[in-house]
Amino acid sequence: MRTPSLKEHERLDDLMRSGRHIIQNTQEFCFSLDAVLLAHFPAFSPRARVLELGTGTGVIPLLIADAVRSVDAVELSPVMADIAARNVWMNELEAKIRVRQGDYRAIRSLYAAESFDWVLANPPYRPVCQGEISRLQGVARARHEITATLADVVAAARYALRYGGHFALVHLPERLGEILVALHAHQMEAKRLRFVQPKAAKAPNMVLIEAVVGAAPGGLRVAPPLIVHAADGSYTEEILDIYGREGQAE
Amino acid sequence: MRTPSLKEHERLDDLMRSGRHIIQNTQEFCFSLDAVLLAHFPAFSPRARVLELGTGTGVIPLLIADAVRSVDAVELSPVMADIAARNVWMNELEAKIRVRQGDYRAIRSLYAAESFDWVLANPPYRPVCQGEISRLQGVARARHEITATLADVVAAARYALRYGGHFALVHLPERLGEILVALHAHQMEAKRLRFVQPKAAKAPNMVLIEAVVGAAPGGLRVAPPLIVHAADGSYTEEILDIYGREGQAE
Repeated sequence: MRTPSLKEHERLDDLMRSGRHIIQNTQEFCFSLDAVLLAHFPAFSPRARVLELGTGTGVIPLLIADAVRSVDAVELSPVMADIAARNVWMNELEAKIRVRQGDYRAIRSLYAAESFDWVLANPPYRPVCQGEISRLQGVARARHEITATLADVVAAARYALRYGGHFALVHLPERLGEILVALHAHQMEAKRLRFVQPKAAKAPNMVLIEAVVGAAPGGLRVAPPLIVHAADGSYTEEILDIYGREGQAE
Repeated sequence: MRTPSLKEHERLDDLMRSGRHIIQNTQEFCFSLDAVLLAHFPAFSPRARVLELGTGTGVIPLLIADAVRSVDAVELSPVMADIAARNVWMNELEAKIRVRQGDYRAIRSLYAAESFDWVLANPPYRPVCQGEISRLQGVARARHEITATLADVVAAARYALRYGGHFALVHLPERLGEILVALHAHQMEAKRLRFVQPKAAKAPNMVLIEAVVGAAPGGLRVAPPLIVHAADGSYTEEILDIYGREGQAE
């Protein structure tokens, strides 16, 4: 690991994986459980070429880099794209991960069509990390962005994926209907769902979705729910296995 | 309760609700947990006019009759429609439940358009009860019927429901994507989902879906999963509350 120089409001966290670390800005969205769960959701081939739409700090590329051939990652915010690029440099992963600042609504100007095996997306509905930005304003903005970009993210994924390629995303269960309809409208069919529940008896607050380009409808596999907390409030074994035994961010 | 005369292969079961009983034919599909769960899934208004598409033995009308204004039920099979009609008579519910033998693919000839507040459907994927029909043949036939009638049942529900009316169905999780797409194509949006799991850590084997005609997309509520068996194999309290403390059929 190279030693980074941190800018104002930035902090360095241990990703608890392969010695990787991550710079985050406490005034921007910080990565949270959803990103970590999404990174662990796909069954990648080691030859997979992966694109992440809206990478934020680049946490997902950092977590999956060892499992795939390459990761391209695009991020709209110049502040976040700069953090993501410095995270790649700090972890010495320039040979594996390419970060671009850009708008995936104009994906045709960024990447060749049908050039990826997997596309990952964790649309921005995460709570604000901390700092001056009001939590409520942050939540409102995140919700607004979800509304504006669901169709955009699905269209961008379809453009970037080869026929038979996989699109994995994490989203709110309340948007599931729209998501499945939008996937179908873009020649993708959901083939695997996994709901994430805070506890065994609670309603899910996230859903992980895997869709395949050009697949026939039907045959959706709904996995057992992923339970985050045991009855006593501690993390479940599955979460500890995924998240790292001393993970702090959530 | 009136005393029925049973035909060959018929048996009489206690529904464990309001003293109701049901005739079933052991060589046909018998009702099972899915029908009972579907009957308990909606939050009916006492003024609700309900239509069930494919009522089989009429078990759902018998279970919901006390909660609604009226139940119409249509059944394709003359043998099953006869059993359903005798079940209504036996339970003295002719004032509340009307059974018709007919094909809901020709629903325009059976009911007035947009004349119901709720439509319920439990498409035939149930295992064969017992008897000469091979289990495997029965399952194969049931699967074939699912394939043939998903679009039919959604179209029939849309025809029968008033604007703002509710469609509740129970189906296999693997069909969820197709179901949500078909609902959307017929101006219905899923607003509530509940997965049914054999045990807390198992994948769901049924999903209960409530859709609303003319609703805006989004706002889908995914309820906590309904767990059938506790870790020790006994029924959970919720299932016992729904199913009756001595229910035999499953």
